[in-house]
Amino acid sequence: LKKNLRERGFVEFLRAQAGFRPPQLRLGIGDDAAIFRPAPGFESLLTCDLLVESVHFDLKTTPPWELGARAVAASLSDIAAMGGLPRAYLVSLAIPRRGALSKEFFKSLYAGMRAWGESFGAALSGGDSSSSPGPLLIDIFMLGEVEKGRALLRSGARPGDLVFCTGSPGDSAAGLAVLQGKLKNPDKGAAAIAVKRHLLPVPRCLAGRFLSTQSAASACIDISDGIASEAHHLSRESGVAIDLDADAIPLSPAVRALGKNALDWALRGGEDYELLFTAPPSKLGLLERDFRGRTGVSLSLIGRVKRGRGVRIKRHGKWKALADGGYEHKFF
Amino acid sequence: LKKNLRERGFVEFLRAQAGFRPPQLRLGIGDDAAIFRPAPGFESLLTCDLLVESVHFDLKTTPPWELGARAVAASLSDIAAMGGLPRAYLVSLAIPRRGALSKEFFKSLYAGMRAWGESFGAALSGGDSSSSPGPLLIDIFMLGEVEKGRALLRSGARPGDLVFCTGSPGDSAAGLAVLQGKLKNPDKGAAAIAVKRHLLPVPRCLAGRFLSTQSAASACIDISDGIASEAHHLSRESGVAIDLDADAIPLSPAVRALGKNALDWALRGGEDYELLFTAPPSKLGLLERDFRGRTGVSLSLIGRVKRGRGVRIKRHGKWKALADGGYEHKFF
Repeated sequence: LKKNLRERGFVEFLRAQAGFRPPQLRLGIGDDAAIFRPAPGFESLLTCDLLVESVHFDLKTTPPWELGARAVAASLSDIAAMGGLPRAYLVSLAIPRRGALSKEFFKSLYAGMRAWGESFGAALSGGDSSSSPGPLLIDIFMLGEVEKGRALLRSGARPGDLVFCTGSPGDSAAGLAVLQGKLKNPDKGAAAIAVKRHLLPVPRCLAGRFLSTQSAASACIDISDGIASEAHHLSRESGVAIDLDADAIPLSPAVRALGKNALDWALRGGEDYELLFTAPPSKLGLLERDFRGRTGVSLSLIGRVKRGRGVRIKRHGKWKALADGGYEHKFF
Repeated sequence: LKKNLRERGFVEFLRAQAGFRPPQLRLGIGDDAAIFRPAPGFESLLTCDLLVESVHFDLKTTPPWELGARAVAASLSDIAAMGGLPRAYLVSLAIPRRGALSKEFFKSLYAGMRAWGESFGAALSGGDSSSSPGPLLIDIFMLGEVEKGRALLRSGARPGDLVFCTGSPGDSAAGLAVLQGKLKNPDKGAAAIAVKRHLLPVPRCLAGRFLSTQSAASACIDISDGIASEAHHLSRESGVAIDLDADAIPLSPAVRALGKNALDWALRGGEDYELLFTAPPSKLGLLERDFRGRTGVSLSLIGRVKRGRGVRIKRHGKWKALADGGYEHKFF
């Protein structure tokens, strides 16, 4: 057992990376805890996302700046899915002893984190670090805020509601397939677009804010593990059935150009960080009129909420049960 | 690259472990984020503590219940050192693929976390998990609260202030030495006490609250890496010198019985989770009169704050510079 961490060198390094400090952050890196002053009338949102080398990313295909951005994007996306404003985050790093990672690597990693965090209002506020005999591991803990009672939950979908998704899910999985060399002679332009979408996902914070401030969604979740898995989450938490229309699921031209797997990538692929949400039909007019212009992201009506349970999908004119969790992993 | 986590099985397991849910926690495990309602007039405290197998703990000598308690104790201690009230925490777990860890192991781990968390008012509120090709890794993110402007910082020590520590630092390091078999024929009673102090450290939350609510401390830090390292932190952050008196550092009878290293354990050992703080002489009466009775923990006056920089210690009648960070670790 070796003692480790919290060493001054790393804290000084971190302080130099901190940058942006919003007024709500009363105290950032360097004490026993960061101090954040909550906005009156708001509730706090707490989330964390763990990224493990060789499980969630491969250093051979992910440059450190993009790795930092993606790590923060995962938590920003959780706050977005709650309809909240990202405010502050802490970063825990387990750093492999094998020592191939340079100071420049970490500067670049934090620069990527900061670029994504600051773009959406979240300040690097602290963290912890340790050496590790294992892989590089990044854990982001994010604090967000949302007006009292306005958070978008997974549990609010009701029979009769419509099901929407933002953007074009599947791009990220296609980009990963490109990076892993799994596609034969992929179209270069399409490959470049998909890879960018994989490495630099843009969390839908504006979209989440539109939905919460306009009370436009009955339930919401971010698409981190594919539409199938997230639809099952909404179905379970809301106690409803969800019917999806395969033809309505928006696939980007890039993802269509990259393979026959396009729909599977959207249903089963990960890390799109688009939003999947439900809304009562009374909100359709508002969404059609204002969503795109106010959030910058496209919106597609892809299904309906029904009484019952489970998720079905209509494909080639036929209804079929859509299995949950293509990538389910058993710990025990 | 394998897809991972956030699998339903683990979330369901976590929900079953959640237990205590204070009214401020509006939404716990199972959505994209937990929702916490801040108390009016309070600021939020954010901290995280990363524990890595073989760096911070050894599964051969640390039972899972104690491991959970210790992991949460580290964060509780950070909140205590800020003078705050622990409220909620998230747990990220990287779980080794080698699969020697049973469901019972994790039940016990969470039971230990909950026991320590609930004892001080903090609710298990969520987390993330992943498989990992490396060691078991536990990262705790804790949210605490403290009255606006009342947080105890590291930066408030002023020349003329007195330096205090709580309890008996060094016990934990002595206990670790026992567990690692480094002591020859240790006294059995003393060994048992020290091992208990190592495995189940009690964070000084009541002491921290006394200091913040009574405005009794000018600066405060928790002793997680030994008095020497923490005194240097206070010295640096406050821009002052700190003089310590070796004879005044309180060593428990157990730690004295275990070896000649007793003072070194207190100065350089880790994870005591006692508090080291400074206070103006005007607070001495209050501290002598009320501290022990109101917090349950003993208090020792161990030094003085001076103009200048650095940390000195008087030992056998001679002043000597006390080196920083006996266990400093270089990442780069």
